[in-house]
Amino acid sequence: MPKQILMTPGPTPVAESTLMQMALPVPHHRHPGFKKILHEIREGLKYLFQTEQEVIILASSGTGAMEGSVVNVLKKTDRVLVVQAGKFGERWSEICKAHGLAYDEIALPWGKAVSPAEVKARLDRKNYRAVLMQATETSTGAVHPVQEVAAITRSRDTLLFVDGITGVGVFPLPFDEWGLDVLLTGSQKALMLPPGLAFACLSQRAWEATKQSDLPKYYFDFAKEKKNLEKDQTAYTPAITLLVGLQEVLARVRSQGLPSLFAETHRLAEATRASVKALGLELYAAEAPSDAVTAVKVPAGLDGEALVKTMRDTFGVTIAGGQDQVKGKIFRIAHMGCITVFDVIAALSALEMTLSSMGYRFTMGAGTGKATELLGLALAGKSK
Amino acid sequence: MPKQILMTPGPTPVAESTLMQMALPVPHHRHPGFKKILHEIREGLKYLFQTEQEVIILASSGTGAMEGSVVNVLKKTDRVLVVQAGKFGERWSEICKAHGLAYDEIALPWGKAVSPAEVKARLDRKNYRAVLMQATETSTGAVHPVQEVAAITRSRDTLLFVDGITGVGVFPLPFDEWGLDVLLTGSQKALMLPPGLAFACLSQRAWEATKQSDLPKYYFDFAKEKKNLEKDQTAYTPAITLLVGLQEVLARVRSQGLPSLFAETHRLAEATRASVKALGLELYAAEAPSDAVTAVKVPAGLDGEALVKTMRDTFGVTIAGGQDQVKGKIFRIAHMGCITVFDVIAALSALEMTLSSMGYRFTMGAGTGKATELLGLALAGKSK
Repeated sequence: MPKQILMTPGPTPVAESTLMQMALPVPHHRHPGFKKILHEIREGLKYLFQTEQEVIILASSGTGAMEGSVVNVLKKTDRVLVVQAGKFGERWSEICKAHGLAYDEIALPWGKAVSPAEVKARLDRKNYRAVLMQATETSTGAVHPVQEVAAITRSRDTLLFVDGITGVGVFPLPFDEWGLDVLLTGSQKALMLPPGLAFACLSQRAWEATKQSDLPKYYFDFAKEKKNLEKDQTAYTPAITLLVGLQEVLARVRSQGLPSLFAETHRLAEATRASVKALGLELYAAEAPSDAVTAVKVPAGLDGEALVKTMRDTFGVTIAGGQDQVKGKIFRIAHMGCITVFDVIAALSALEMTLSSMGYRFTMGAGTGKATELLGLALAGKSK
Repeated sequence: MPKQILMTPGPTPVAESTLMQMALPVPHHRHPGFKKILHEIREGLKYLFQTEQEVIILASSGTGAMEGSVVNVLKKTDRVLVVQAGKFGERWSEICKAHGLAYDEIALPWGKAVSPAEVKARLDRKNYRAVLMQATETSTGAVHPVQEVAAITRSRDTLLFVDGITGVGVFPLPFDEWGLDVLLTGSQKALMLPPGLAFACLSQRAWEATKQSDLPKYYFDFAKEKKNLEKDQTAYTPAITLLVGLQEVLARVRSQGLPSLFAETHRLAEATRASVKALGLELYAAEAPSDAVTAVKVPAGLDGEALVKTMRDTFGVTIAGGQDQVKGKIFRIAHMGCITVFDVIAALSALEMTLSSMGYRFTMGAGTGKATELLGLALAGKSK
């Protein structure tokens, strides 16, 4: 296929205008012109995170921001509660373990979302300095009830850490309004950029906590980065080209507006969910599907890895398979960032062609048809 | 000026062919095609580092690789010796301090290179697990005698850490042959890429030491990265576009060959040094000037910050000023990476125009003339 369609939950496609912007000669990071770029980025990130706080910018992948938030905000004697419902929940636990922090887990079956009542019960039973969770558990496609959990933590001496790597810019996570304490994201998801940048936003009380933190850190020193950002610079050489792209993306996000961006992503997710159901398929995280990524169960008797491979190698559509315990059992289609209506239609069409070639029995065209119907209605409604 | 000339010791200019390569649609990092890219990169890095060892690739700036090498190779009870002769020597000490490691310093005046005899004397006097040094101390333009220090450390139970951020790809640092234990670099120097990637190479005994390391780490876990690299993948989402660029750069480096690359950089550095002397200026690190970057003393009575600003704003040539204790007192012109003969000529020409406008007395054209003479001879010699 001459044109590849990327539908994975990271990286997501990068707009051609952004790619071109990043292909310009690399400016020096201490040049006044670059400081202006960084200043605009700071404002754009505050808009994106819906906050008055400074958003820390790191040259790393999202995992660096997860570890950074732990080592900056917590101290050696803290005990934390991890919502563990997939591969990225596990990552929170692994980070705590690597730094010798005591942690308990709310261990859920993969595909499930945490119940706020359970969080409350666990916090009532034992003192935890923080709850660590995901906005979307990307490995299962489940969305966790961040707002409801924040309503519990904000009235206690418990900080809420939200890995919003597949959340920020996908659906509402208003940082200040909901009273979150730490919110993270990466560049290669809703921010429509190549990977290599990560972001962390801290509440006033999280910044207070950093002053008591005794966990070792150097490269991921949020207070040092904040002091530098306030002068429109970074502590170390930043990933300059990605920041040049970020300026362009954030300007587009502001001009479109978050409500419209969220509605667009939601429409694509809704249409995808309805379409795969029209093919007789089942959602994996059926009770709490995230708008970031739809995880679908591979029908009994079919090889999920072969399905993903055929879509990619025969039809040029890259979706994600399952990881770890759901390897070969689910496939995942992303909706965030630059993914368009016709990317979704193409992906569903390729999915149908693939399922048909694998001998799965269904009405050919039912999924593509459903998506065209739903997205057409939405677009028509939009133009009225 | 419609065309900006970048002559700073990081970032350095990126070739247009690399910028274009990185502007192609972003591939997925688990795609077989990307694994092939990563496989080629691994081979190219081994060539660049002149080693049989795996070279670890990190999505971070060079400082991340410095911290990573400390937390992976050392343990809490280790005592280390830091060669401290500028801002980046200081960084080694700061990293040790952040991780509670005991360290002593060979504290040298800025601009000086360490004496191997002093390293030997210090190692004879006290047991150190490691010596931490720079190949070039970028803040002063001094080159440290890495080979001579390695000859001392390799016969003892002392590991040698070399920050080669402005060394690898600039001048010879053959990792295996010299018996280095840790060698680092970043993408935005001799590797002619935007910032955002860092690299670390470990000797067999450094890898052995990682097994005893008890310093906390997660994102910068070299053993985990090594295990992944051996399968042509990375532990976390890599900085994909920079790796696409890296493949192109490493192919060029291999095709040109390291000896030719080193000779080219050396010629530019030599010509620059001779030219600034022809203007009556003095080298800052006169006893041990590095081929990576030439630091020049600002003549008495002139404002060094104004000099750098005029070169940039009036003539479009960005060089670096001095940092910290030499702020305003030196300026620095880089020679590594994609910097060409005519970039050097242009920078010297702009320097003369600037010095003249500031009232400095010298023979206009003496520097540019000297560089044209020397580089012309070298190029003619090359084509014979």
